[in-house]
Amino acid sequence: MTNSPSITETINHYLDAWNEGVPERRRALVALAFADDATYKDPMMAGAGGDEIDAMIGAAQQQFPGHRFVLAAGPETVGDHVRFVWHLVPTAGGDVVAIGHDFATVRPDGRLGEVVGFLETPVAAAA
Amino acid sequence: MTNSPSITETINHYLDAWNEGVPERRRALVALAFADDATYKDPMMAGAGGDEIDAMIGAAQQQFPGHRFVLAAGPETVGDHVRFVWHLVPTAGGDVVAIGHDFATVRPDGRLGEVVGFLETPVAAAA
Repeated sequence: MTNSPSITETINHYLDAWNEGVPERRRALVALAFADDATYKDPMMAGAGGDEIDAMIGAAQQQFPGHRFVLAAGPETVGDHVRFVWHLVPTAGGDVVAIGHDFATVRPDGRLGEVVGFLETPVAAAA
Repeated sequence: MTNSPSITETINHYLDAWNEGVPERRRALVALAFADDATYKDPMMAGAGGDEIDAMIGAAQQQFPGHRFVLAAGPETVGDHVRFVWHLVPTAGGDVVAIGHDFATVRPDGRLGEVVGFLETPVAAAA
């Protein structure tokens, strides 16, 4: 089981990593948020291990200059899994430009193991 | 990789199982939605394997008579993972009484492997 305080700290480190523009600081935040052998996958990118995930985040930051990720819901845990929602917003303020639903496994040390990111989409095919 | 048509079918079978009041039909729907060795876990219940998951759903149905689960968002896949949102609503119509965010691994045959269900909660601690 994970405890909420530590997972909240981990998710804050995770979002801070996505928002950190200084490479050395970003890599340190990645190490606080992700297990050394963590994996990340979303519809646009993927990475395995701290260095690859750090490089992936750095590349993503180039695609969204002037924006930042903010926690919109959660984190909440179920056993060793966590869920949270983020919003991508203009740093200068303004409307949300993207909404993500992230799910991850949580390691005993409170860091993230396997992270999967989904972008919010409308109902596909309600039977 | 999974393909959307088959995963949409699987999620429809999954919600149909939660809504099916006839035990034999519910068990058949569980077999269509869950792999034989599937696991399910949410804040209120857990089960491992088709029979246990079927019994778990049957017990849950006793707790929510007169209600049904409807797809509210998704399903959407990222690699071999799927995400979808359900609403619990009165069968007679009326306001949503619960919102769930389900996340699962998808097996090559399109059935669900490890399912984790989260209930929607507000932001915990935005740093």
